[in-house]
Amino acid sequence: MSYSALSQHFQQQYHLQHIAAICGWDQATMMPAGGNQARAEAMSTLAVLSHQQLQDPRLADWFAAAESPTNTEPALTAEQKISLQAMQRQWRDATMLPSDLVGAFSLAGSRCEHAWRSLRPANDWAGFLPLFEEVLNLSRQVAAARAEVLGLSRYDSLLEQFEPGMRTATLDPLFDGVKQWLPSLITEVQAKQAGDRVLQPQGSFATAQQKALGLEIMQLLGFDFNHGRLDVSVHPFCGGVSEDVRLTTRYDEQDVAQALMGVIHETGHARYEQGLPAQWRSLPVGQARSMGVHESQSLFFEMQLARHPAFIAKLAPLLVQQFGEQPAFSADNLSKLYTRVKPGLIRVDADEVTYPAHVMLRYEIERDLIEGKLQAKDLPERWDQLMQQYLGISTQGNYKDGCMQDIHWTDGSFGYFPSYTLGAMYAAQQAQAMQTELGSFDQLISQDLPSVFDWLQHNIWQHASLLETDQLITQACGQPLTANAFKLHLEQRYLR
Amino acid sequence: MSYSALSQHFQQQYHLQHIAAICGWDQATMMPAGGNQARAEAMSTLAVLSHQQLQDPRLADWFAAAESPTNTEPALTAEQKISLQAMQRQWRDATMLPSDLVGAFSLAGSRCEHAWRSLRPANDWAGFLPLFEEVLNLSRQVAAARAEVLGLSRYDSLLEQFEPGMRTATLDPLFDGVKQWLPSLITEVQAKQAGDRVLQPQGSFATAQQKALGLEIMQLLGFDFNHGRLDVSVHPFCGGVSEDVRLTTRYDEQDVAQALMGVIHETGHARYEQGLPAQWRSLPVGQARSMGVHESQSLFFEMQLARHPAFIAKLAPLLVQQFGEQPAFSADNLSKLYTRVKPGLIRVDADEVTYPAHVMLRYEIERDLIEGKLQAKDLPERWDQLMQQYLGISTQGNYKDGCMQDIHWTDGSFGYFPSYTLGAMYAAQQAQAMQTELGSFDQLISQDLPSVFDWLQHNIWQHASLLETDQLITQACGQPLTANAFKLHLEQRYLR
Repeated sequence: MSYSALSQHFQQQYHLQHIAAICGWDQATMMPAGGNQARAEAMSTLAVLSHQQLQDPRLADWFAAAESPTNTEPALTAEQKISLQAMQRQWRDATMLPSDLVGAFSLAGSRCEHAWRSLRPANDWAGFLPLFEEVLNLSRQVAAARAEVLGLSRYDSLLEQFEPGMRTATLDPLFDGVKQWLPSLITEVQAKQAGDRVLQPQGSFATAQQKALGLEIMQLLGFDFNHGRLDVSVHPFCGGVSEDVRLTTRYDEQDVAQALMGVIHETGHARYEQGLPAQWRSLPVGQARSMGVHESQSLFFEMQLARHPAFIAKLAPLLVQQFGEQPAFSADNLSKLYTRVKPGLIRVDADEVTYPAHVMLRYEIERDLIEGKLQAKDLPERWDQLMQQYLGISTQGNYKDGCMQDIHWTDGSFGYFPSYTLGAMYAAQQAQAMQTELGSFDQLISQDLPSVFDWLQHNIWQHASLLETDQLITQACGQPLTANAFKLHLEQRYLR
Repeated sequence: MSYSALSQHFQQQYHLQHIAAICGWDQATMMPAGGNQARAEAMSTLAVLSHQQLQDPRLADWFAAAESPTNTEPALTAEQKISLQAMQRQWRDATMLPSDLVGAFSLAGSRCEHAWRSLRPANDWAGFLPLFEEVLNLSRQVAAARAEVLGLSRYDSLLEQFEPGMRTATLDPLFDGVKQWLPSLITEVQAKQAGDRVLQPQGSFATAQQKALGLEIMQLLGFDFNHGRLDVSVHPFCGGVSEDVRLTTRYDEQDVAQALMGVIHETGHARYEQGLPAQWRSLPVGQARSMGVHESQSLFFEMQLARHPAFIAKLAPLLVQQFGEQPAFSADNLSKLYTRVKPGLIRVDADEVTYPAHVMLRYEIERDLIEGKLQAKDLPERWDQLMQQYLGISTQGNYKDGCMQDIHWTDGSFGYFPSYTLGAMYAAQQAQAMQTELGSFDQLISQDLPSVFDWLQHNIWQHASLLETDQLITQACGQPLTANAFKLHLEQRYLR
């Protein structure tokens, strides 16, 4: 009884998330500008009600009853026990913080994020600092309160929100290892690519044709259009719910690669969502495992698959078909273009090889900020020092392309950044295991692309949150997470 | 204090309605088919939560405190008192029925409506009857329970949901009067039009161009695109919220009039919504006055304005501009085409002159069904008899184009039909008053269209539900509702 009461309650919670996801998608894609204030108010009310629903006092009793040794209800199956834990985790996350702290944190985050939108382009660090200090101060309080309840260090308690089970004790040696070989790898790749002659496709590329191409690629990648669609938003995302996945992209008529690679990336997220097990879909255990695992699917599609020469060989004729012949559309040139490596200031523009440097830098900084070893005012100096160390680039005085470039810290999303590089590593490890099992990508991509998705469905998607992340990876790849497959992948793709 | 607590509570209710309206719009316009089940479940949870919010036990205390003579709070303004009554009305509507009756009624309605979707095309009255009997039976119980609380007759208690303040005692003589002159008017108009040669525009008319034309007309009619948009759905509607009005239409590439007149009709609804007073928008008193008043605005746009020769003179060149010259696009031919009168079986396809006959027939029948004077099994016979009497058409054995044609009764929406003809009468009366004040439509439409909208804004839209319907009409038109202006309008347009 208590398990089924809990299930019903969390299903309702899922329904409210559905409603919020669709309205959020609408806000980003369809809503006329004048509707914004009313929408913000309506969604805020929905968020409050949804939060209240999760704080229903009956939940504590139901959880206690479900766990009581004197429980006379029919025993739970192994999967139901895991489902119960997943509900408990979501409930605990929603209720462990004092509500005045939640309110203050959310307010400071909104204020800082809102100001950041104009302070960043103005390069105004002095204006940003006091707002950021308040967010950091409250984030530290949140971390301390979570740490207390969870029995974790402060930073680990934030990491736990995005990567359940992941700890600094795992990340530190993992990233320390990468730091040993990454800077020299970047140098070597640049030296190797120095002589390459790479042609930029000459546009313009009409939006309607780019969209047609995107839809064609989504079809090729097995996106289920009966349970999802593709639209346009300023900041591309994969939203909606697993039964109705809403992808977005944006089109630059001068640059065909941006929307193309964006759509492929988001299709990776989407197929994970669409592949979640139907019977668990509306419960917490049926949701995606973690941000890192989610990113592993988008990066599997965008990096492992789409930048592979065999996939580019499929892509090239589709580009020609939409936009006509030009020398830049040869498979060989596209391969060079899509694997070009160049250290730069901006994380979101970084290539596959330099990206981890951006992430490790942010990880070290946010860890020290939360643990109190670094103060907000010293952030630019530390940023500059690490950029020099990892990528040989100075950001002195350039806040907007330095420590003010990302939205994450402005609203207190500390602990999120590692997910990007964890995703890249998980993806490389999955690609390695898959090829060991099924044969090389050369052959799979050109002859049997669906088998790639079947492997992911079988090994990743269908497990949702029924396995812990390390179980999931170990079961899928035959070993727990290391950086080895990622390193090997980069060496094979970029140095061979 | 209690008034502001109530206001805040009803604002939250408005926010949930906003969320439901946007998700409903999405369901009809954007959602892929595979998302339907999850959406239905999510919206059902939202409806339950929204209903619970309105049943919050604190509301009774707040209403009592706000009305108590010992109330020590600052006195309410006249408008706040009206606002309080509007909140009370919404609350009373949501709470006066026992919840098991609400559940049974909603279930029977869903079941009957769902079955109707396939039984109607199959002309299967025998299959429909038992489902309809259950809906009717529960509708009678709902009516009895509402009647008890409201101190009204059963049918009036249902009418009150759609047309607050309207009673059978007003409708009966009003419609009896119309019955005196309408059948002979229809005959005379048909005789007069018998010799007209009317050309049908020859298509096809590409969807993209029809949409461009629709947007142009919406602009002409003052639709605010910063607070709304136009999309496609199978059943056109005006949805969303007043801050973000979502119009829909559907395109038939063989028939340019359907989408064109549909868009004009919905734009009338939309401008009413967009014109509601901003300071009351999120409270019940800031909502549209009634279904009849709402329909008066759509019919003002579609019938009074758009079928007026001066408006057709504006329309004709826009059609030519989109689709090229053809004889059917002459203003004279379009006028004849858009005012063609022909008795038919189907209400939604009816012209301006025969439409009231369809409504009066339904009114008489549903009134007698609810009051227990007519049984479900006798419906087809009564339908046929009244169709013969009002329009000279037999529906014997033809259930699908007879008594099974409308969705309204399938889910128990008894009491709604009169709103259509009330709307037509209000619209005619407003048009008469406006022309008395500002000058004839000939001149207003061709020289100063915005003044038409200003009059409606001033006399109708800005008053939302701050005036009762009869006050609203009397204040706007100088006299309460009669059928005189409607009769005069039909005679002038169709017999002159």
